Amino acid sequence: MGFNSFGNIFSITTFGESHGKAVGCVVDGVPAGLKIDEEFIQNELDRRKPGKSKFETQRKEDDKVSILSGVFEGVSTGTPIALVIENKSQKSNDYSNIKDLFRPGHADITYHYKYGIRDHRGGGRSSARETAARVAASAIAKLLLKEVGIDVKSGIYAIGDIKAKDIDFKYAKQSIIYALDKNAEEEQKNAIEKARLSHDSVGGVVLVKLGNVPAGLGEPIYEKFDASLANAMMSINGVKAVEIGDGFNSAKLSGSQNNDEITKKGFLSNHSGGILGGISNGDEIVIKVYFKPTPSIFKPQKTIDVNGNETICELKGRHDPCIATRGSVVAEAMAALVCADMLLLNMTRRVKNIKKVYLGVKG
Amino acid sequence: MGFNSFGNIFSITTFGESHGKAVGCVVDGVPAGLKIDEEFIQNELDRRKPGKSKFETQRKEDDKVSILSGVFEGVSTGTPIALVIENKSQKSNDYSNIKDLFRPGHADITYHYKYGIRDHRGGGRSSARETAARVAASAIAKLLLKEVGIDVKSGIYAIGDIKAKDIDFKYAKQSIIYALDKNAEEEQKNAIEKARLSHDSVGGVVLVKLGNVPAGLGEPIYEKFDASLANAMMSINGVKAVEIGDGFNSAKLSGSQNNDEITKKGFLSNHSGGILGGISNGDEIVIKVYFKPTPSIFKPQKTIDVNGNETICELKGRHDPCIATRGSVVAEAMAALVCADMLLLNMTRRVKNIKKVYLGVKG
Amino acid sequence: MGFNSFGNIFSITTFGESHGKAVGCVVDGVPAGLKIDEEFIQNELDRRKPGKSKFETQRKEDDKVSILSGVFEGVSTGTPIALVIENKSQKSNDYSNIKDLFRPGHADITYHYKYGIRDHRGGGRSSARETAARVAASAIAKLLLKEVGIDVKSGIYAIGDIKAKDIDFKYAKQSIIYALDKNAEEEQKNAIEKARLSHDSVGGVVLVKLGNVPAGLGEPIYEKFDASLANAMMSINGVKAVEIGDGFNSAKLSGSQNNDEITKKGFLSNHSGGILGGISNGDEIVIKVYFKPTPSIFKPQKTIDVNGNETICELKGRHDPCIATRGSVVAEAMAALVCADMLLLNMTRRVKNIKKVYLGVKG
Amino acid sequence: MGFNSFGNIFSITTFGESHGKAVGCVVDGVPAGLKIDEEFIQNELDRRKPGKSKFETQRKEDDKVSILSGVFEGVSTGTPIALVIENKSQKSNDYSNIKDLFRPGHADITYHYKYGIRDHRGGGRSSARETAARVAASAIAKLLLKEVGIDVKSGIYAIGDIKAKDIDFKYAKQSIIYALDKNAEEEQKNAIEKARLSHDSVGGVVLVKLGNVPAGLGEPIYEKFDASLANAMMSINGVKAVEIGDGFNSAKLSGSQNNDEITKKGFLSNHSGGILGGISNGDEIVIKVYFKPTPSIFKPQKTIDVNGNETICELKGRHDPCIATRGSVVAEAMAALVCADMLLLNMTRRVKNIKKVYLGVKG
Repeated sequence: MGFNSFGNIFSITTFGESHGKAVGCVVDGVPAGLKIDEEFIQNELDRRKPGKSKFETQRKEDDKVSILSGVFEGVSTGTPIALVIENKSQKSNDYSNIKDLFRPGHADITYHYKYGIRDHRGGGRSSARETAARVAASAIAKLLLKEVGIDVKSGIYAIGDIKAKDIDFKYAKQSIIYALDKNAEEEQKNAIEKARLSHDSVGGVVLVKLGNVPAGLGEPIYEKFDASLANAMMSINGVKAVEIGDGFNSAKLSGSQNNDEITKKGFLSNHSGGILGGISNGDEIVIKVYFKPTPSIFKPQKTIDVNGNETICELKGRHDPCIATRGSVVAEAMAALVCADMLLLNMTRRVKNIKKVYLGVKG
Repeated sequence: MGFNSFGNIFSITTFGESHGKAVGCVVDGVPAGLKIDEEFIQNELDRRKPGKSKFETQRKEDDKVSILSGVFEGVSTGTPIALVIENKSQKSNDYSNIKDLFRPGHADITYHYKYGIRDHRGGGRSSARETAARVAASAIAKLLLKEVGIDVKSGIYAIGDIKAKDIDFKYAKQSIIYALDKNAEEEQKNAIEKARLSHDSVGGVVLVKLGNVPAGLGEPIYEKFDASLANAMMSINGVKAVEIGDGFNSAKLSGSQNNDEITKKGFLSNHSGGILGGISNGDEIVIKVYFKPTPSIFKPQKTIDVNGNETICELKGRHDPCIATRGSVVAEAMAALVCADMLLLNMTRRVKNIKKVYLGVKG
Repeated sequence: MGFNSFGNIFSITTFGESHGKAVGCVVDGVPAGLKIDEEFIQNELDRRKPGKSKFETQRKEDDKVSILSGVFEGVSTGTPIALVIENKSQKSNDYSNIKDLFRPGHADITYHYKYGIRDHRGGGRSSARETAARVAASAIAKLLLKEVGIDVKSGIYAIGDIKAKDIDFKYAKQSIIYALDKNAEEEQKNAIEKARLSHDSVGGVVLVKLGNVPAGLGEPIYEKFDASLANAMMSINGVKAVEIGDGFNSAKLSGSQNNDEITKKGFLSNHSGGILGGISNGDEIVIKVYFKPTPSIFKPQKTIDVNGNETICELKGRHDPCIATRGSVVAEAMAALVCADMLLLNMTRRVKNIKKVYLGVKG
Repeated sequence: MGFNSFGNIFSITTFGESHGKAVGCVVDGVPAGLKIDEEFIQNELDRRKPGKSKFETQRKEDDKVSILSGVFEGVSTGTPIALVIENKSQKSNDYSNIKDLFRPGHADITYHYKYGIRDHRGGGRSSARETAARVAASAIAKLLLKEVGIDVKSGIYAIGDIKAKDIDFKYAKQSIIYALDKNAEEEQKNAIEKARLSHDSVGGVVLVKLGNVPAGLGEPIYEKFDASLANAMMSINGVKAVEIGDGFNSAKLSGSQNNDEITKKGFLSNHSGGILGGISNGDEIVIKVYFKPTPSIFKPQKTIDVNGNETICELKGRHDPCIATRGSVVAEAMAALVCADMLLLNMTRRVKNIKKVYLGVKG
């Protein structure tokens, strides 16, 4: 089972705390014979790296990934791939004044009640630093997906209530705030900057798409593609809602508006977001992920300490004014991990394919 | 693993198709010594039963549950509890004219591509009939939750764009459409009736709450309480979005608006929906579940058949004009199943508790 | 996870007690497109059926299997196949005198300590009656294995210390005690009969072979083929030891004796039992399974009751004088289940195969 | 699931190859509040360390363990504990001459057929070097077991056909070959030395005991204590047979000989090896583990190369003349890991305990 593992066949097991020695993961279930492009892994990790602009936390991490196992002469061997990323820019002192109190909106209080002990430095295990491991692992998933032509992309759909209108995933790749819409970008930046200058933070929405996914991926009833995506997205720090396709708007529609009619050329619309009955239908898979505003703000807030005494929380340190921006890379990573797993699970679901692999039978 | 299993310790494995002999499940991980109230299980199942009013499908099922194992002299023995519900009101003929075509908005096409074969009668395994098994199983989960004082409740928050304002879960229990707000009920009924009369359907939103949940439930990083709830909810037929607490709206807020400040008496607000860092914080857990409109409508729709030829889909048969209403019982069921599992998982997470159980050590 | 589930992809979840309404299972992960021969399933179940001769318990069960789901027009649909076998010949009264005491060699005492409650009738869940469900499920596994040419066979290798010399699996199929060696059969029968007449029981050894298994099945490190077989076999009632290939004897040998040299035509010997490093090597897989004597004997034995008072256990009822005989069918069943699972898991382990299935790429 | 994970709640995920950068593991499910004694972990690892005498491989490894996460101020936080052990004494050149051929008795050939690629250096992932990670992880399991008084011990029962008569686990701790019987030790040493000098190897048998295990551990039907132990032991490199209690001898006995009668003071014998129906009965748990002789011998052996050509395998390098000796530490480690997992699983199996933990109810 594993409390820190995700995935069935293509799976990750992550470890590490914000201010511990390292974060990392074991990527298991990677099929043998995959060319492992280390530079690509590092590049993916760099996309998530903090400290690249004023719109992000000023914690500056190299985030150099080391591969400890599972790759031989540049190719996956089918054995587990361990990835380790050292923590270098810990400033534990930033946290000494809050070591005994619970930051509002944070997991401090729940870790305390659950475990009776917590590594308070930077949120310990509850820190989004853990997501670096996911992003590194997802690079391997993406290399696998590429082998069958699947692509994954993401960007910022909204900051606060400023939404993208024209979606351009290529643009998002170069935007410092991962903005999907060049025209909305400036206003979105301003919203983040305004939050930052007022010692506050702001929420945002990420759009993720999986393109060229073959029809048939997703395992009903309890490993449905959309349910697994929801699980994956909601496991990301600060995510409070997930929708597939038209999602929460669908609830307002009539069936005749919401159904996607079918022609020889495919679906006439994509309200469903590419998934029907938990299984990919061949259309683009569309996911929106809603991030709350960073709970770490620099305004005084009421709270209690570990002894139950009321006090005021006044944070120092380095925090993202908006977690959605770098969060888009993480959401994209989780989509890739889910998709790789679904790809492998589906390998086993037809006798036809089993005969194809073992007996070389065509069809 | 199991494609048809849900849960880690308290788990269900469901089986059955819409027009097969039976649907049912094996409930595993039920702790020994739980009084199993068969009448309660049947009552829960009756809440979900179709055909109770014109707002629901006219398929009339007895839905009598049989317990095949795991209960001895009215008490759980710790062994798996198998529950079987016979299908009695199948009218397979309703489906003969659509056996070779794909109903828009349905899983027909994805099952076809995935498996190369499908039981077309009533959607087969993709039918919401499978959820009867979940509801029966959840009754056992609820009996367990009651032992520690946790309660679970649900109701209709919105039909189309008609929302509840005053929430009354007791009222929902007696409302024929499971309405949470007596004052909105009539208008919500009208929306369903209007959809029905125009041979169409309408979406809706369900609100689920878990009350009196002890702080500390939920397993970071990959069995977070909220992520598991999202997974659970999105696994329900027709669900396209899930939010926890303020959910979608959180993404528009600033941190100072969204953080729940803490006092001796508890949290001053509950934007978080009772979960921080994936762990329950002792406050009420709040989930909203967004159902799309029933895809089965009686208007002609463009589609293709299994040979790829274009044709028109004209449905007959008996269908819910709004799946959200009975869906509320299913969403509540899934919340109970998740919570029971989290309750058991958390038993193992502290040395203190282990010594309490094995050595009788206090504290 | 599931305490009552076995297997990763091809998995079973069993339920039922000796004297409850039924035993059965849900078989999950069966690939779509498999012809389900119901008669074959029933025949397999009949091989295990009690009461066929004086060498077996006189409990006479029809053991008629019903398929509740997952099969449409004679073919598997990829959805879970539920199998139910009613209990018809329960004589609960046989057990009234032992309801409050612990039968030596039985699980009565451990179930009592573990659960605080137990269904004492016929051993409840701890009865070997549960294995009927495994055998029924394994018939489906065998149908899958046949598709790629793998065969599974078993028989009695030893009763007490009377061993088979010449192994003939065909003969075992017709032998009333499943004897592998026609020449040893009479003496083996006598050993059972002697045990029976002296109100005692006797142990035995089962030999299972998997033939024509492709090289490459088995997942190191923790789903090794041999480790999974050991797990499977030891999960059978009364099994106390398992060996693969030369097994126990290997520990006495030198490397030069035990290594199997390799030529173009294959291995020159099969000390390894067809598995190296947890992976099948293409040679025959050879397993021996050691059953203890039936603990239910009709001699008075010292024991205690549930209140801790010393007393004498005097059993009545109907019991196998040797559980190994019918146990051979169960051991064979478990081998088939493990092999089917390994077959499916291995589908996902090479990029080459993934491209073969999704892109139709040859090689 | 994970191909490289073991355990349900208390679980390990291992990684690393013989001649890669490092081996290691993520230990998940460790309850919070456990004092983590780093020195103890290192000491356990040192017990398994190679190169301590001529009876072992001359590969000399420091085997220094680093804890990367999950421990804060010396105490487990409930988050995953990552352990890494660098490989320092790789001599990859030793393997250059065998890079394209399959060593008899080794996993070279099966890895080749399974994955199409393999890290040939020292056997890569199939090397017993992986077991260093298990031993490190098991030290944490042992610290947990100690909290409830359970102890685990092991030693060499037999080398070749030279068996221990008097069992002394304390003696084994100091014996260079882990011998349980001081009087057999010399002869056992001679057997190893003889094998070594003749460029051969020899098999052996390990005895493991779990003492003071509470009655009730083990989850029927498919996480039985004995079945999990069998799985665990057979997953160790070179193990070909496992027995519990009287094990394979039980198969020769009658029920009246094999049953353990029960009195107020406990069982009058322990043929069962402390497990009945898959559940611990409170008596000592007794496991014997049969190791084959090291397949790496220095005699010429027939084999084929990766192109199927016949050739002669002539090994160089550093190998244990008997893998059973250091294997005893690994077998003990696996027993500890299984027991810790069973301890945690059983926490969830009674309503009584759930009320004890959540409501503080006594009983």
